[in-house]
Amino acid sequence: MTLIETDVATLATIVGEENVSLRHTDLEAHSADESHVEPHLPDVVVWPQSTEQIAAILRYANDREIPVVPWSGGSSLEGNPVPVMGGIVLAMYRLNKILQVREEDMQVVVQPGVVYDALNAHLRRVGLFFPPAPGSSDVATIGGMVANNSSGMRAFKYGVTRDYVRRLKVVLPNGQIIETGTRAKKSTSGYDLTSLFVGSEGTLGVVTEVTLRLLPLPEHVAAAIAVFDSLHEAAATVHDCVRYGLDASAIEFLDEHTLHATNVQHNLSLRETPTLFFEFHGSEAGVEAQVEYLRELCEDNGCIDLQVASSAEVREELWTARREAREAIKQCHPGKAMISGDVCVPISAFSGMVEYVHGLAEEMALRIYTFGHAGDGNLHTEIIADRADRGEFARALEATDRIVLRALEVGGTIAGEHGVGVAKRTFMEREHGPSLEVMRALKALFDPKGIMNPGKMFP
Amino acid sequence: MTLIETDVATLATIVGEENVSLRHTDLEAHSADESHVEPHLPDVVVWPQSTEQIAAILRYANDREIPVVPWSGGSSLEGNPVPVMGGIVLAMYRLNKILQVREEDMQVVVQPGVVYDALNAHLRRVGLFFPPAPGSSDVATIGGMVANNSSGMRAFKYGVTRDYVRRLKVVLPNGQIIETGTRAKKSTSGYDLTSLFVGSEGTLGVVTEVTLRLLPLPEHVAAAIAVFDSLHEAAATVHDCVRYGLDASAIEFLDEHTLHATNVQHNLSLRETPTLFFEFHGSEAGVEAQVEYLRELCEDNGCIDLQVASSAEVREELWTARREAREAIKQCHPGKAMISGDVCVPISAFSGMVEYVHGLAEEMALRIYTFGHAGDGNLHTEIIADRADRGEFARALEATDRIVLRALEVGGTIAGEHGVGVAKRTFMEREHGPSLEVMRALKALFDPKGIMNPGKMFP
Repeated sequence: MTLIETDVATLATIVGEENVSLRHTDLEAHSADESHVEPHLPDVVVWPQSTEQIAAILRYANDREIPVVPWSGGSSLEGNPVPVMGGIVLAMYRLNKILQVREEDMQVVVQPGVVYDALNAHLRRVGLFFPPAPGSSDVATIGGMVANNSSGMRAFKYGVTRDYVRRLKVVLPNGQIIETGTRAKKSTSGYDLTSLFVGSEGTLGVVTEVTLRLLPLPEHVAAAIAVFDSLHEAAATVHDCVRYGLDASAIEFLDEHTLHATNVQHNLSLRETPTLFFEFHGSEAGVEAQVEYLRELCEDNGCIDLQVASSAEVREELWTARREAREAIKQCHPGKAMISGDVCVPISAFSGMVEYVHGLAEEMALRIYTFGHAGDGNLHTEIIADRADRGEFARALEATDRIVLRALEVGGTIAGEHGVGVAKRTFMEREHGPSLEVMRALKALFDPKGIMNPGKMFP
Repeated sequence: MTLIETDVATLATIVGEENVSLRHTDLEAHSADESHVEPHLPDVVVWPQSTEQIAAILRYANDREIPVVPWSGGSSLEGNPVPVMGGIVLAMYRLNKILQVREEDMQVVVQPGVVYDALNAHLRRVGLFFPPAPGSSDVATIGGMVANNSSGMRAFKYGVTRDYVRRLKVVLPNGQIIETGTRAKKSTSGYDLTSLFVGSEGTLGVVTEVTLRLLPLPEHVAAAIAVFDSLHEAAATVHDCVRYGLDASAIEFLDEHTLHATNVQHNLSLRETPTLFFEFHGSEAGVEAQVEYLRELCEDNGCIDLQVASSAEVREELWTARREAREAIKQCHPGKAMISGDVCVPISAFSGMVEYVHGLAEEMALRIYTFGHAGDGNLHTEIIADRADRGEFARALEATDRIVLRALEVGGTIAGEHGVGVAKRTFMEREHGPSLEVMRALKALFDPKGIMNPGKMFP
């Protein structure tokens, strides 16, 4: 449906004239995320400033059956917030307050628009942090991370966003405001509504307040890079690290192409062969013991070079390089489209997945970069294609699909940490079978008129 | 409703005559758990042997609107599986196979009747374990743990059952079989149905297969006991351990009464003042560093004695004493009723809760033992009362209620790890407010006829 004048006037009554926009620049700024998904303009952008305003907007939109799409950092990679059916974009930027740091309880209460890096910068003063570290940490917001159950490089040790969400304030599509969860560290009281909303990609309601559990900042941090002649040896090392309980905070894999892009962009001279990045968090003695343990495991598996970053500068340099791998790849191919992949497979299938992708690149004459959170079995791919070259672009999309199907074949999931959005909807039935009907029933229960972020998650 | 002859005959057709019983001894054996909740006989006990049989039973029961109550170890403490409305008890004992150990992926697939200790004994051979350690580990089954989202002493480091469940096979009340989750370590594909079923206390369906994530057994284990003159000092130590990131696997609290019962039953001579038990898992160097760190924190807070258990025997002796604290208390009061409490509060409120309970004991002339998982803010109470002494028993129930209400007042939850069952239903509205209506709607969605474990969780 298209919004009419009275709709816009009503929204202005709720949030104030200055917080409603029909300007093309504003609509365009909320039409596309970082994915290859086709942009789509919303009808209107509003900037709500309170839970109550959002409740009023949802009540009205539900009554009029107008689509509502919450919008956070816009750094998602599957088209998650693209307003494919138009309607209202709820831009959450102005709900960006850190409401309460409960230092004694190691919790923080925030509004959804708080940016991840800003939150951790604030918490650093009291020696605490929120561990999940998405690659887009400088723009990703807590609301977006909750919606997508984001994780990142440190999930190996610390888990994902869902593991840290203790309470949520949520506006349901009918405008009702509920609170889920508890301030206690654990609870067995009733159904886990909190976990249901986390990762629901804005399809069940709008999160307006989040209580996160925090951890003390590690006393000591170390990093290491292990270089291998072959993927097989790198994979065997990952296997041993996981299987024998190496207490690393991150175990990251980069293939030779990704290292090349990283070297070019960051003026580094890392060897361009299969490489693992490690990070350790703990006490100094504990970390030292783990680094020694890593040394043993690397030697056992034919590592040709293990470098332990001794200084904070070197460590930061390496991790910046890893974090910005995607950006480096992008810079190497100006003007080209980049299709991001994000599958997660059982650990035993990780190296097979990398091999499959490399084989596919050769077979389909495509440049495919692979890297990812090897310790979790979470593989990212970046396929480069020229949108103007229809054949190449079609092959790139086909390769993306084949990688997802392969992940399912080996017992994995279609989405490790980027969510389903628009791009992966077609695989939901294949992954979930009859469970998809249960998900649909849940969607219908919470959002019978289907106003919340329509066109996402479900095929 | 009461079952009629044809109902029993139909059940016999599904599972075989020998797996259906109307014998009083069988009914009685499935009428009460370990709580103070009044026993109630089911109409019939059946021992299904496959998912398909359970699907057939549920289809039939749903059609006839007969209550169905899954029954596992029977060690629950809130009346969780007591068949308060009669009907069919599904005794899950014969679904007790470890179906697959996926060593490479560090996962195990089990049937729900597998006992926790038996599973870990089996996994020990390959150096893996399932961390949540309930007090009743020798009888608690994986199915029961999933239904109640059980945890225990090691939740401080390792979290709760929900954190380890990767996949579930579930029979819905209408007999439909679904599978949730993935074999990958993490996923952002669709709604988290797995977390919804975990902790649902058998009210949404019957879990018939569970895939658990496992961890490598720790290389080194150590234990320590810290004794204090006052609760205040013990609590300050817990606070510092949590706040400054002591990497302990368990931080347990026992009050003077509990220590007395423990000494009597185990022929120990532990000092009978507020005491903390610690356990450490890690590399030898890492554990040593943490024990030294604990020593510092204890000294800072006026600990009068810190003993580190050097040998495995002493360690095991201490932890057996802690694990069996409840049993020791019971033995000290033969013939008396024991009402178990299980609240969980924000860490900052833990010592205040203990003080409140001690004050209540004095005010109401009751013997109340307190102990619990201090590192999680999870406090257990055991109130001793003579059922024959109506006044005392009524005071004991009142005290139990007041402890729960106090936990809510300080921002905690009514149930840390024992679930809601029958005993805590009346507090659900007060804890969850409007969210309770959402939970009711979910219950109605999955189980419109209300056949699954009726009379539980909801007031």
